[in-house]
Amino acid sequence: MWDTLWKNVHLATMAPSRISSPDPYGCIKNAAIAAKNGKITWIGAEANLPDAPEKLARSVISMQQKWATPGLIDAHTHLVYAGDRSNEFSQRLNGVSYQQIAHEGGGINATVAATRAMSEEQLLELAITRAKRMIAGGTTTIEVKSGYGLTLEDELKLLRVGRALEQHLPIRVHTTFLGAHALPPEYAGRQTDYVNTIINDMLPRIAEGKLADSVDVFCETIAFSRSETEQIFQAAAQLGLPVRIHADQMSDSDSCALAARFKALSADHVEYANENGVQAMATAGTVAMLLPGAFYFIRETRLPPVDLFRKHKVPMGLATDCNPGTSPLLDLTTTMNMACTLMRLTPAEALHGVTTIAARALNLQNITGVLQENYAADIAFWPISGPHELSYWIGGVRPSARVFGGKTDN
Amino acid sequence: MWDTLWKNVHLATMAPSRISSPDPYGCIKNAAIAAKNGKITWIGAEANLPDAPEKLARSVISMQQKWATPGLIDAHTHLVYAGDRSNEFSQRLNGVSYQQIAHEGGGINATVAATRAMSEEQLLELAITRAKRMIAGGTTTIEVKSGYGLTLEDELKLLRVGRALEQHLPIRVHTTFLGAHALPPEYAGRQTDYVNTIINDMLPRIAEGKLADSVDVFCETIAFSRSETEQIFQAAAQLGLPVRIHADQMSDSDSCALAARFKALSADHVEYANENGVQAMATAGTVAMLLPGAFYFIRETRLPPVDLFRKHKVPMGLATDCNPGTSPLLDLTTTMNMACTLMRLTPAEALHGVTTIAARALNLQNITGVLQENYAADIAFWPISGPHELSYWIGGVRPSARVFGGKTDN
Ligand SMILES: [Zn+2]
Ligand SMILES: [Zn+2]
Repeated sequence: MWDTLWKNVHLATMAPSRISSPDPYGCIKNAAIAAKNGKITWIGAEANLPDAPEKLARSVISMQQKWATPGLIDAHTHLVYAGDRSNEFSQRLNGVSYQQIAHEGGGINATVAATRAMSEEQLLELAITRAKRMIAGGTTTIEVKSGYGLTLEDELKLLRVGRALEQHLPIRVHTTFLGAHALPPEYAGRQTDYVNTIINDMLPRIAEGKLADSVDVFCETIAFSRSETEQIFQAAAQLGLPVRIHADQMSDSDSCALAARFKALSADHVEYANENGVQAMATAGTVAMLLPGAFYFIRETRLPPVDLFRKHKVPMGLATDCNPGTSPLLDLTTTMNMACTLMRLTPAEALHGVTTIAARALNLQNITGVLQENYAADIAFWPISGPHELSYWIGGVRPSARVFGGKTDN
Repeated sequence: MWDTLWKNVHLATMAPSRISSPDPYGCIKNAAIAAKNGKITWIGAEANLPDAPEKLARSVISMQQKWATPGLIDAHTHLVYAGDRSNEFSQRLNGVSYQQIAHEGGGINATVAATRAMSEEQLLELAITRAKRMIAGGTTTIEVKSGYGLTLEDELKLLRVGRALEQHLPIRVHTTFLGAHALPPEYAGRQTDYVNTIINDMLPRIAEGKLADSVDVFCETIAFSRSETEQIFQAAAQLGLPVRIHADQMSDSDSCALAARFKALSADHVEYANENGVQAMATAGTVAMLLPGAFYFIRETRLPPVDLFRKHKVPMGLATDCNPGTSPLLDLTTTMNMACTLMRLTPAEALHGVTTIAARALNLQNITGVLQENYAADIAFWPISGPHELSYWIGGVRPSARVFGGKTDN
């Protein structure tokens, strides 16, 4: 007997086997979906159920023609931080310059200082509050980066908070070590020393503690160079850790090609990616992770090369990039609307970006991100007329219900 | 004895008497606010309460340091419509041209046809669903336009639905007659006849039935001319109805000056307003109603002349412009973030735009929009560090609680 059967529902399965040219969502209308032990055990047209619903499952729920999608996956977040940067947002709009704000200790250094000052319990509490807002938006899996600690102990603290979220909330977490996020103030003028610290002190300890599922580098003129990125990627590879990259956000650093050389799970931002890099990503299977929240918030005008990604069949993911400085955003359907409106993705590309493609960017493509037998029963139910409507509302759409591992949120 | 006392709260009163140069929100920290018979009866620092809280009010609620603002006011919405235009959104992103969509009966004509086909009860049900999402975002007052009926009977139907919302939901409604929204298909080639129908048939019946609180015209090259607008405004004035206008959205029609001549409550969109018109609005007291949702959704690049509005002290309001074709948006804090991010309003201007200024645009400036004695007890409580944070989150903020006329939502 199944645990739960949801019936009278339409499904956007996103399953490759069901996708066709006229139906990029792999829809099943008037469907049913069942879960047992946290996994999907049956999916199909309601008319094809093998028996009367109440004989099949302990709990039968009629979804009154709602649409179901896979639970959404947010594959790029800086969720664990302390401090409030909304005051800077207000200051800038009142005419205070970036320089002045930095001079007064603002910017990323403010977040690093506030984050270091917090205990693990306090950081966890803050992260839980934000993750709850993500959950309320239909998200069931998140990536969580470190990167506001920038000392061994503080980076370990952030990664432990990321891991702990799974114990406190109905959500799946992939943690990413981003020691190479910014040069910590105490290393001013000694960037090489800090890179060596990452490679020799931080990475081995993090690998040993199994605290990170991947390693990220902010590769940019204002952050870490290609050659520093390469050294960190090599060290990660030797420890068996997959890599990802903040790439080509503000300038063409040719970092997509570098990412591809290391078979990076994703290259993120990528507004300035060049065609050579895009081709390399296609060959390597690297996901292009588009972050329209940051694009919007910093009023970037350079669009990511969406047509090149399409031409070379590079899968496009979408994420919130939730962070206090450049993307205070927790909601994936708002993100989908921005990707469609600002970057001209289709609604189908947007939904794949936060389900199948996002799963792939987190190495979870066999676990979640599609509605299919034996996948996790991670499901979002929506009050919409079809899956394209998820991308239509400017402020996003709230799910009618959300199921994680077969269990419905209260 | 008061009905309810909310204590342990910080207040952004927005009250002119409390606003000063360093505090554009008129804040009272560690405050209390009380309501009786739907109105605010006491407001001030909690330390100044005249007696022990439980002796003052039947119900005493500790708000745990939340921030309270006036309930938000959405002063420009096309909330009453039927039909689904999310499919057009998807079609356009898949490469179908506007022309092809119009040829297939899409665009505003699709909404008009679907709206005409619906009964009043059905339209009310649809409007209630959308208004509930507005309420969930902290909105307590909305303007509701007609304009998808475009026959006497259908426009009356839409205005009655607008009025009926107040009976079904905890919300205050200002209705606006927008017969001059588009030329109905059956009047093709006979625009003058339709304007005469508006003036001679529709306006008198609507005034007689007291169904509209104001009259609006879409004044634009693709809609109604300045001279047609003027005729409709004259007819409205003779019936004692205040006017407002969709002005200078896609071109400079010099319609702000026209609006000012009729002491319009608001001129809305106004991306292309010229300085002469801005000066006239200042003299007339006409609100410039900015609609960043539509600006964003149609990817407008011309910004409204915010600096001119500031220079001439024209009050700037903000609204969702909720409509299915160009602004599918129900949430005012998302709107505030867009006004700040895209149009460079300050967070304080944004919050005034959806409270004090929006109230003025609806002739409700003595009823709601500030936290002050004798005003309606319309209050939104927010989980934020200060009122500026309301504009900071890209996907908006959800209130912790909302109070309308002294009553807390369940
Ligand atoms: Zn990032
Ligand atoms: Zn409008």
